[in-house]
Amino acid sequence: MGYLPDPLVDLKIKEYLLEDMPFGDLTAAFIPNKDVKGTIINKEQCIIAGIPFAHRVFQYLGLDTHQYIAEGAKIDANQRIFTVKGNARAVLTGERLALNFLIRLSGIATLTHQLIQASSSLPQAPRIAATRKTTPGFRFFEKYAVTIGGGDTHRLSLSDGILLKENHLSIFSDLTKAIQYAKKQVSFTKKIEIEVTTIEMAVNAAQAGANIIMLDNFEPSQIRKVVDRLSEMGLRANVCLEASGGITSENVIEFASTGVDVLSVGSLTHSAKGIDFSLVFEPFLEKI
Amino acid sequence: MGYLPDPLVDLKIKEYLLEDMPFGDLTAAFIPNKDVKGTIINKEQCIIAGIPFAHRVFQYLGLDTHQYIAEGAKIDANQRIFTVKGNARAVLTGERLALNFLIRLSGIATLTHQLIQASSSLPQAPRIAATRKTTPGFRFFEKYAVTIGGGDTHRLSLSDGILLKENHLSIFSDLTKAIQYAKKQVSFTKKIEIEVTTIEMAVNAAQAGANIIMLDNFEPSQIRKVVDRLSEMGLRANVCLEASGGITSENVIEFASTGVDVLSVGSLTHSAKGIDFSLVFEPFLEKI
Amino acid sequence: MGYLPDPLVDLKIKEYLLEDMPFGDLTAAFIPNKDVKGTIINKEQCIIAGIPFAHRVFQYLGLDTHQYIAEGAKIDANQRIFTVKGNARAVLTGERLALNFLIRLSGIATLTHQLIQASSSLPQAPRIAATRKTTPGFRFFEKYAVTIGGGDTHRLSLSDGILLKENHLSIFSDLTKAIQYAKKQVSFTKKIEIEVTTIEMAVNAAQAGANIIMLDNFEPSQIRKVVDRLSEMGLRANVCLEASGGITSENVIEFASTGVDVLSVGSLTHSAKGIDFSLVFEPFLEKI
Amino acid sequence: MGYLPDPLVDLKIKEYLLEDMPFGDLTAAFIPNKDVKGTIINKEQCIIAGIPFAHRVFQYLGLDTHQYIAEGAKIDANQRIFTVKGNARAVLTGERLALNFLIRLSGIATLTHQLIQASSSLPQAPRIAATRKTTPGFRFFEKYAVTIGGGDTHRLSLSDGILLKENHLSIFSDLTKAIQYAKKQVSFTKKIEIEVTTIEMAVNAAQAGANIIMLDNFEPSQIRKVVDRLSEMGLRANVCLEASGGITSENVIEFASTGVDVLSVGSLTHSAKGIDFSLVFEPFLEKI
Amino acid sequence: MGYLPDPLVDLKIKEYLLEDMPFGDLTAAFIPNKDVKGTIINKEQCIIAGIPFAHRVFQYLGLDTHQYIAEGAKIDANQRIFTVKGNARAVLTGERLALNFLIRLSGIATLTHQLIQASSSLPQAPRIAATRKTTPGFRFFEKYAVTIGGGDTHRLSLSDGILLKENHLSIFSDLTKAIQYAKKQVSFTKKIEIEVTTIEMAVNAAQAGANIIMLDNFEPSQIRKVVDRLSEMGLRANVCLEASGGITSENVIEFASTGVDVLSVGSLTHSAKGIDFSLVFEPFLEKI
Amino acid sequence: MGYLPDPLVDLKIKEYLLEDMPFGDLTAAFIPNKDVKGTIINKEQCIIAGIPFAHRVFQYLGLDTHQYIAEGAKIDANQRIFTVKGNARAVLTGERLALNFLIRLSGIATLTHQLIQASSSLPQAPRIAATRKTTPGFRFFEKYAVTIGGGDTHRLSLSDGILLKENHLSIFSDLTKAIQYAKKQVSFTKKIEIEVTTIEMAVNAAQAGANIIMLDNFEPSQIRKVVDRLSEMGLRANVCLEASGGITSENVIEFASTGVDVLSVGSLTHSAKGIDFSLVFEPFLEKI
Repeated sequence: MGYLPDPLVDLKIKEYLLEDMPFGDLTAAFIPNKDVKGTIINKEQCIIAGIPFAHRVFQYLGLDTHQYIAEGAKIDANQRIFTVKGNARAVLTGERLALNFLIRLSGIATLTHQLIQASSSLPQAPRIAATRKTTPGFRFFEKYAVTIGGGDTHRLSLSDGILLKENHLSIFSDLTKAIQYAKKQVSFTKKIEIEVTTIEMAVNAAQAGANIIMLDNFEPSQIRKVVDRLSEMGLRANVCLEASGGITSENVIEFASTGVDVLSVGSLTHSAKGIDFSLVFEPFLEKI
Repeated sequence: MGYLPDPLVDLKIKEYLLEDMPFGDLTAAFIPNKDVKGTIINKEQCIIAGIPFAHRVFQYLGLDTHQYIAEGAKIDANQRIFTVKGNARAVLTGERLALNFLIRLSGIATLTHQLIQASSSLPQAPRIAATRKTTPGFRFFEKYAVTIGGGDTHRLSLSDGILLKENHLSIFSDLTKAIQYAKKQVSFTKKIEIEVTTIEMAVNAAQAGANIIMLDNFEPSQIRKVVDRLSEMGLRANVCLEASGGITSENVIEFASTGVDVLSVGSLTHSAKGIDFSLVFEPFLEKI
Repeated sequence: MGYLPDPLVDLKIKEYLLEDMPFGDLTAAFIPNKDVKGTIINKEQCIIAGIPFAHRVFQYLGLDTHQYIAEGAKIDANQRIFTVKGNARAVLTGERLALNFLIRLSGIATLTHQLIQASSSLPQAPRIAATRKTTPGFRFFEKYAVTIGGGDTHRLSLSDGILLKENHLSIFSDLTKAIQYAKKQVSFTKKIEIEVTTIEMAVNAAQAGANIIMLDNFEPSQIRKVVDRLSEMGLRANVCLEASGGITSENVIEFASTGVDVLSVGSLTHSAKGIDFSLVFEPFLEKI
Repeated sequence: MGYLPDPLVDLKIKEYLLEDMPFGDLTAAFIPNKDVKGTIINKEQCIIAGIPFAHRVFQYLGLDTHQYIAEGAKIDANQRIFTVKGNARAVLTGERLALNFLIRLSGIATLTHQLIQASSSLPQAPRIAATRKTTPGFRFFEKYAVTIGGGDTHRLSLSDGILLKENHLSIFSDLTKAIQYAKKQVSFTKKIEIEVTTIEMAVNAAQAGANIIMLDNFEPSQIRKVVDRLSEMGLRANVCLEASGGITSENVIEFASTGVDVLSVGSLTHSAKGIDFSLVFEPFLEKI
Repeated sequence: MGYLPDPLVDLKIKEYLLEDMPFGDLTAAFIPNKDVKGTIINKEQCIIAGIPFAHRVFQYLGLDTHQYIAEGAKIDANQRIFTVKGNARAVLTGERLALNFLIRLSGIATLTHQLIQASSSLPQAPRIAATRKTTPGFRFFEKYAVTIGGGDTHRLSLSDGILLKENHLSIFSDLTKAIQYAKKQVSFTKKIEIEVTTIEMAVNAAQAGANIIMLDNFEPSQIRKVVDRLSEMGLRANVCLEASGGITSENVIEFASTGVDVLSVGSLTHSAKGIDFSLVFEPFLEKI
Repeated sequence: MGYLPDPLVDLKIKEYLLEDMPFGDLTAAFIPNKDVKGTIINKEQCIIAGIPFAHRVFQYLGLDTHQYIAEGAKIDANQRIFTVKGNARAVLTGERLALNFLIRLSGIATLTHQLIQASSSLPQAPRIAATRKTTPGFRFFEKYAVTIGGGDTHRLSLSDGILLKENHLSIFSDLTKAIQYAKKQVSFTKKIEIEVTTIEMAVNAAQAGANIIMLDNFEPSQIRKVVDRLSEMGLRANVCLEASGGITSENVIEFASTGVDVLSVGSLTHSAKGIDFSLVFEPFLEKI
């Protein structure tokens, strides 16, 4: 997702600027009409994410930008991320949106990176994946931030993959039939994922040909049992195993060492703490 | 903000559903066409926020809902928030968006409430206000959640109030002239707020007739000095004092007891931890 | 409002062009593919307003423009406002929208200016303010024109200020409680305005701490009584007084000399006569 | 145009409500949650226009309406137009938009009617038509109001008819060739109109087969000459004659008695004075 | 329609790109970040249509294009239509939409041309016109393709002409009254077309002053009778005759030689076979 | 895809109605205001597709519908598909859009069904899949029609699957590395498809772990060789084989009997002939 979809990004940036000024920027409107130079600084250590969007916000407003640090870099506090030059009114109008992108996306990238780091010593660390627990309307950007942090987006929407969860399965009489039915009804281009809550369900799902099995709220010890059982039955290679539920930076190493392929973590997008950034005008820059 | 703007909410809910299914819900599409009953449960203690939006998501999809708990209530974990009944496909299609509203908005309301509680013992506790550090495109809902938690929205956009910050003031030759100019240029319907970084600036701003003075990154002791100085000069009553910068649930009492009118806290919207919710279908409900 | 919100203006100009050509310009489509030079001329004396929007219409269509007269200037009839150069098809396609901006916005600016002029001899002339009686969908531009004419926008929407009118107050048991309630419920960033219909209500509103009091359909003599009474009670300085209802260029001086701060006039936006403009191609220019 | 295009009207009403409350109605949000009954009253004699749109605004907000007077009726001042019942917040939120429709559309319908009345004594009164000099984004409604007043919409946009004006013709070497070219290039479903500035051009246009000839800024005496000349040449019956430029309620009878088929009048839409309306809550209704 | 309406085309191209990548181009995102040169080739003989839109797709994505063949040219298979140069990711992202424009529009232009060619030997060949049987949302482009193929667009929408069809007429008591009513109610700028199913109806319609008469599902022999009858009655010159129903490239000459003015053919837009195109990268170009 | 995404369908139907009446339905506007009953009839044998959308068009316009025939049924000519009742103006306004859905979607479903039928005698007939060669803006509906005809949608957009085509592969140094890179970079939820042009490439792709291999423009005999070679190497079971290029109803049996899993056919969406439908008002129904 490092390559940005222009029509989506353009549409969203215009929408977001309109949200912040349905009738214009009343404060910027009356300040003297001068050129300024401002620099964006991070106030905390982080994986920096969102620079391309901050850049486009200013570009849309007719400003020049110069970038000092690469998207995705791991940086100490108080670095000069990039500089924006041009009309003071435009800089001040775009400041908040540009910073809001950086605050939130760097927060997500940094948390993702922390979880990956926590299990990086393992020979076969699983992928860390996000979920669909994203802020409504802002999903593309949050999934993007997960990839910048080194994570996996998981499904992007209900239109790009099949996931039969416990509630779905309760509508079918049995899991095997559900999977067979899915394989027949769904395009051959899509993988079929099943959420299971017991070891038996996991085995049945693998036998029925599920492509991905999500072990929902399993303890690490139970996950190991699933891995072992599927290995014994010769089914492990055919299936991707995903563990989900209650995974945090504190316990990620336990889950990561169970032998699953993927750990999915809702908090990457719904509970990442924002990273603090400022836009500092030239005269104030020395103070920092 | 307890009264919802229909055209905005309708527009956004449709946009958010489209985000989650640009080409439909591939999983729900092939499950048996049955009616179900599902209940939304909170997994953590919280101030519940977002019920009206979750409700409208399901309503838009043709489903019936029944609400057990009032928006804004402080609730223990595992309460039945509301029930949704109707076609299983529609319930499953709307589930994620409904929960995403609750996760994020309850997180913000809960954090806002915590900060207010932390200073509730004071005889004259200041208001706790949010900032414009919101998720792009989702501001209305995040500001709404702040009010549900008992907080103040602060400015909603660049179009509804004047805030001259340090960067703005650097364009003017002096603060007094900036305020005089603002008073002349800006509609009489708007308040004029100035961000200051020293006690002297605060005094000048009050003398020049600013309506609100934001003390940016002042220590509690410095804030007290501003309060005292303005009181001595007979200017305190004419001006609203807002403190901002580094306020957390740990230190909020110190800031709250300085005598300011408002504490504004960016983390209310950019760093609130999500509250965990589930939609549980009838057959699984006993387990909880 | 002299600084234009790009995302709003861009969105609107595209929408307006689409309104005028849902399937293209059938006439321009078949004329010879030549370059032309056209000049926009005002046919009547006016305060010129709308040039930046006319300019952007042509710019969006790939044309060059050259401006002779500054936005907001007071000009005699038959001045060359600006020149547009480039493909004849594009010039003819954009002509009507560009002129429609000028016709309407100059009409509003001119009427606003007339009302201001009518009371300019007073030592302390009140502001002339618009209302929300604007053409649906076109409010930003009409409020902008008011400022170009020297007026005050008043509220831009229901989201940027509080105005308790007679109908609102009828829902509350008493005016004082309504104001107290408003002060508690509404963000500290917003002023609170009350519409009153008697002198007593005005006094009560001032005592209860309203920021702005609108004297609705008061005779000039009654307005003076309010001013006097509030002065006697020492409340005049704390409150902004606005008179509204039946103010025209004929009687504005009477209202203006009452001592109020603001006169608000719905007809600025709902009944301004359009100013006549033409786009004249080079060969016809001599005739003028 | 008496039959309303639902998708257009729905889209516009939502857009207009959003314009007036990008973040909700801050005033209505905190008033007591009661039901009310309000009545819309006209303050001036008029042709009433816009009721269906006012009605839909309230309907969209969940309110009931009852209509006393038919769209298009000619009414004295202070009539009860229609009543709206339901939640006070919703009534107050929708009030301004509903009234803005009535103010502007009744103004246009009334002016149109005046011009038609002014020549109604003639045995063969020409049609009174509007132009494309409409408020950007609001054209459908303004053209609709013209028809309610008894007028003709003229072209709705650049996509539904051909009008070669003086500027267009200057690109072609001669008028006859321009018309021949138009007849060949343009769909057989469209009429071809030519704007002429001399009697000779009018004759040439008729000979070349123009469907409509617009006599731009002709004196009534000159118009008569065109009518006579075309009659003598046996061309009058094949062509529709439209006069345009400087027609007002004062001089309309002179233009109307020249024998042309249509008088087009830009001021119908760009300079109609608004008609004053109020929404009056039940308790205040007796006062009126 | 050779002159393109920028706001419509821009809006549609962005919408179409978003349709094809609601969350970006997952494949292009991870390919090496190199520049490439690609050439669009037609695999079949055709009238080429859609180049301006393919061009704008690539332009919007930041790419350079060079055009070898003019829009509307009749070309043999395997011609180099145009070349696109720039970042490989952008070229691959835009490829499908650019080709989809060419496939469909060239198919329509080619079929239109075939029908025109089939009757080109006649001294007075009628126009070949499209209908409103277009793909929803894509009408502008399909009507455009008809004109590129030499055809007539017919009505563009329900807003730009009157067509009373059999179903409409069934609501009126008689055809003559329907036409009289139409002439009175409808703007003088619009032609009035009537669909008839018998010779008598055609005569009545002509007598009542219809501008266009559509002979629906008439055999060629019946059409001749209508032509003859109207000629005898001296009404032929006043009316445009359109034949419709069951016209194909096989029988078009029979219909064309009846003496009508227009043949309208729904299959131009609803059943044209697509023309095959490819985008070929430089290294593969020699193979072709 | 039998379960319709409400927000998408609603949005599109409104957009499509607006396309057909940017300023309303000029013809329907003046017909008598009566209720009618109309029936939709198919003029040709077909697989009927599009009923839900036709239904919603009328529903949106306030009409009642009654359906006689199930979506997807194989029907002879001249069947009563469904009946619409209500205001004649609304029926006539919605008629064309409702029919345009049926014309195009039944055309696609019927062609899809024909290709499936042509190989239905085989014991292991491959799936028939569509491509992204769809009409811009109308893809959801065209893919839906393919499923109604019994086909497979293939990818819905660039966001829901990976397909490395010849042009993509030319950017990489070798195919194996491209696949390895894809597996690492792309979410585990997505399948990876490779387009190959030689048997060797197909073998390499299978060895490198591609999930789907598209054999582009292979003769049936070559396809068999690929199937045999992969079977011999024990790789056949791990990979889905898709053949593409030049498949028609005439030759589909040859391709279908090669042993591949999927045949993808662009002409399903870009060259399906429309099926003819009519809306017939009650009085005319007997004639049919």
